[in-house]
Amino acid sequence: MRNICVCLEFLTEERCAAIRKTAESLGFSVRFFTLEQQAEALAFAPDCEVLFAHDPELVRAAANLNWFHCAWAGVDAYCRDESLFANPACLFTNNHSYGTTIAEHVILVTLMLLRRMPEYQSAMARKHWLSPLPIRSIRGSRFTLLGAGDIGRHVARRLRAMEAARVTAVSRSGRPQPDFDAVVPITKLDDILPETDVLIMALPGTAETAGILSRERMALLPEGACVINVGRGAAMDQTALCDALNTGHLGGAALDVMVPEPLPEDSPLWSAKNLILTPHVSGSTNLPYTCDLTVELFCRNLHRYAAGERLEGLVDRTSGY
Amino acid sequence: MRNICVCLEFLTEERCAAIRKTAESLGFSVRFFTLEQQAEALAFAPDCEVLFAHDPELVRAAANLNWFHCAWAGVDAYCRDESLFANPACLFTNNHSYGTTIAEHVILVTLMLLRRMPEYQSAMARKHWLSPLPIRSIRGSRFTLLGAGDIGRHVARRLRAMEAARVTAVSRSGRPQPDFDAVVPITKLDDILPETDVLIMALPGTAETAGILSRERMALLPEGACVINVGRGAAMDQTALCDALNTGHLGGAALDVMVPEPLPEDSPLWSAKNLILTPHVSGSTNLPYTCDLTVELFCRNLHRYAAGERLEGLVDRTSGY
Repeated sequence: MRNICVCLEFLTEERCAAIRKTAESLGFSVRFFTLEQQAEALAFAPDCEVLFAHDPELVRAAANLNWFHCAWAGVDAYCRDESLFANPACLFTNNHSYGTTIAEHVILVTLMLLRRMPEYQSAMARKHWLSPLPIRSIRGSRFTLLGAGDIGRHVARRLRAMEAARVTAVSRSGRPQPDFDAVVPITKLDDILPETDVLIMALPGTAETAGILSRERMALLPEGACVINVGRGAAMDQTALCDALNTGHLGGAALDVMVPEPLPEDSPLWSAKNLILTPHVSGSTNLPYTCDLTVELFCRNLHRYAAGERLEGLVDRTSGY
Repeated sequence: MRNICVCLEFLTEERCAAIRKTAESLGFSVRFFTLEQQAEALAFAPDCEVLFAHDPELVRAAANLNWFHCAWAGVDAYCRDESLFANPACLFTNNHSYGTTIAEHVILVTLMLLRRMPEYQSAMARKHWLSPLPIRSIRGSRFTLLGAGDIGRHVARRLRAMEAARVTAVSRSGRPQPDFDAVVPITKLDDILPETDVLIMALPGTAETAGILSRERMALLPEGACVINVGRGAAMDQTALCDALNTGHLGGAALDVMVPEPLPEDSPLWSAKNLILTPHVSGSTNLPYTCDLTVELFCRNLHRYAAGERLEGLVDRTSGY
């Protein structure tokens, strides 16, 4: 009996039918659970070979698991705890279906910052007809993307279509990719920061990326630069960010991720100058297209799994991505 | 003596030097005035053959004018009053340098509406960590642009790069243009509205466009559609817009232009549901790139004028654009 356990919040009839059709055609039996049915899913998990979910407790309960496909992109929660996978050889893949939605979020907050939208909104809320403020534009600005994965590529395509002066990605290898004007290795990060108008962070949460945007590196950014983070909050020094915003060294920032989440009542981030905060929603499953892609990717990967082929989005639990 | 009068708010040393160089190379003499120096400009205007400004009083004062280049895109203020131009044969051109900046504004407010940013912002302002709201995306949405000019083309390029399902322009002629998936004539407007997720209005203010988005036409838009106006406020029925927003028929709207401006204290627009208001700033001269393009266009046109060639952006004062 080859069982698949699917436990997700976006299981429409169509999506279940698509997964069931693929599973049955490949000789699998599949059961679906909503997040509210976690107890039933936990009871079924030990009988399963494949798990498609985003719940560490289900991974822990699935003692006979051979492949876990995580419905989320960020998988740091699954790499910290070595005891999570009973089978050390269990295949582990993540979901790279968030590029479009996160890229739209990045374009949105970039334009809000460059065009000073929060200031206009706050004036209009007081019925005050503000005179035009000096603004900047994506066209002609220099962008640096920390992270050259699926999200970075989707962001870069949009920035280039909007005539950014240059879109440089920073990756571990520095290997060129056609979606970027240039890719530089992480060892050159300090050289690119002084030539960056907008820094976009889309990094996985790993030991290597923690604190990568330090106080010293923020100081390397030019006066008025903007910082956007859609990866993991731990990648930056939040105290240094507040200082850089409040002193005016940075022109603005937009955080969709922070530490901790939700942000505590007394966090200085709430009142930092020119900071746009969103509650970790840039890549949530609230956009139907993201969920459709997620299901398609799982079905594609299930074909590969059944055929013994290399899966898409394999995660190395040691490096954490 | 061939005099040029330039009266603008964005005259840097470089921009003046560029204009002066072109003017002198063509045998013109040029004088520059800030908006604060209107009185001096008015005194100089009667001696001028060419005027580069955005002030109807200067046009009226320039009794010997042969060419007025308006620094603004919208020229309705110059077409209403037939007595404005002393010389009925005076050439009249407008400034089509606003495409990039207005397109960035349109992308910004489109994403704010589709991704429900005002709701997240208002929750975050109360330190309330909102759960993900259902959102929509530019990708896969159907856009209709009322107006197929410079602004419409810049908007369309960006929407298509962001994978819009379709970008249709509506123009008087319906003549195809490569930047749009389709161009339909204005006579077909009522057919395209029911298939429109986001309606973007970038129309000149003329007798023909006044009230074009009537209550009846708003009702033709599908439930949840969004409306954006960056052209002229008079193009829509504002009372009907408030009703359509407050009843939830429309999912949201963003107005950068309205009637009158500034909006009076007691306007129902201030409190309409899901309405983003900005104080007519989408295409102002607060972006240096816009001003650079504006000066380049004037210099290019001055060459054409001196050579007796057809000018770029000629306005027909009868049709109003």
